[in-house]
Amino acid sequence: MTDQQQLILKIVIGSWETQSSRVTKLLNTLSDEKLLSETAKGRNSGFYLIGHLAAVSDALLPLMGWGEKLYPQLENIFLKNPEKASIEKPSLAQVKEYWATIDKKVSEYIHAMQFEEWFTRHNAVSAEDFAKEPFRNKMNILINRTNHMSYHLGQMIYLTEQKD
Amino acid sequence: MTDQQQLILKIVIGSWETQSSRVTKLLNTLSDEKLLSETAKGRNSGFYLIGHLAAVSDALLPLMGWGEKLYPQLENIFLKNPEKASIEKPSLAQVKEYWATIDKKVSEYIHAMQFEEWFTRHNAVSAEDFAKEPFRNKMNILINRTNHMSYHLGQMIYLTEQKD
Repeated sequence: MTDQQQLILKIVIGSWETQSSRVTKLLNTLSDEKLLSETAKGRNSGFYLIGHLAAVSDALLPLMGWGEKLYPQLENIFLKNPEKASIEKPSLAQVKEYWATIDKKVSEYIHAMQFEEWFTRHNAVSAEDFAKEPFRNKMNILINRTNHMSYHLGQMIYLTEQKD
Repeated sequence: MTDQQQLILKIVIGSWETQSSRVTKLLNTLSDEKLLSETAKGRNSGFYLIGHLAAVSDALLPLMGWGEKLYPQLENIFLKNPEKASIEKPSLAQVKEYWATIDKKVSEYIHAMQFEEWFTRHNAVSAEDFAKEPFRNKMNILINRTNHMSYHLGQMIYLTEQKD
């Protein structure tokens, strides 16, 4: 791996880990009562958003070819259905644990990736489409999911006390 | 530039442009009344967040060595002071125009960058520190600012109507 390639991975992976550690820090800072509250009137709670982020990270496992999802049940609850859907949901404590376990696992896989692997096809694009659109690779997914995490972090931060 | 380098730029620049076009789309979709509203109770308005994003993008010009800021007055209003500060502010129409002008200019500069330039020092890090921490380069800044834009997009989206 060249020095430049090392820098690229440091930046891209560092960006993911900066956001995910901010999520974890929020989880560890906010009370359960706060986490169960809406982030704004009529909007998703912190609980739902953590479950949503955990589900999206868990889905990276098959998407990146790392393996099976750890908690496939999260998809229906936190991706396919909105918070108000009348379906059984895990407890906040469980969701926090899912997040921590998935986040740790994803981080391990990310660090085990060789540079060239980041430029290979992810599993939501066919080999044929990938030949035409080679930017639909694993690096693209990680950067995209990092932005997705930032997006919801911007919402979860509304659970913290106002400054001033 | 190698094929792989082209892919990296396509992904990193594409990620920036995806987020910035989402901001622009929101601006063009929301009514002025909505944009002037708080994104959540007691939180920044859409107006302030657009001004804030415009100011951060404008600050990329000196930071990346592209030139002087277009609207240096934005820094005091949208970066150094909170929305409730009793200082004169531009109109929403002006802020929208600032955003559009700055965003276009930044996009031009981004596309004019050579691959190797992305790995050079940005102007908020000294040559001495950069020698020790070479990841503090221009690519890092762009990725970081893309996340920053996603973060506030997640808040501005609260100005849209609730989905069922």
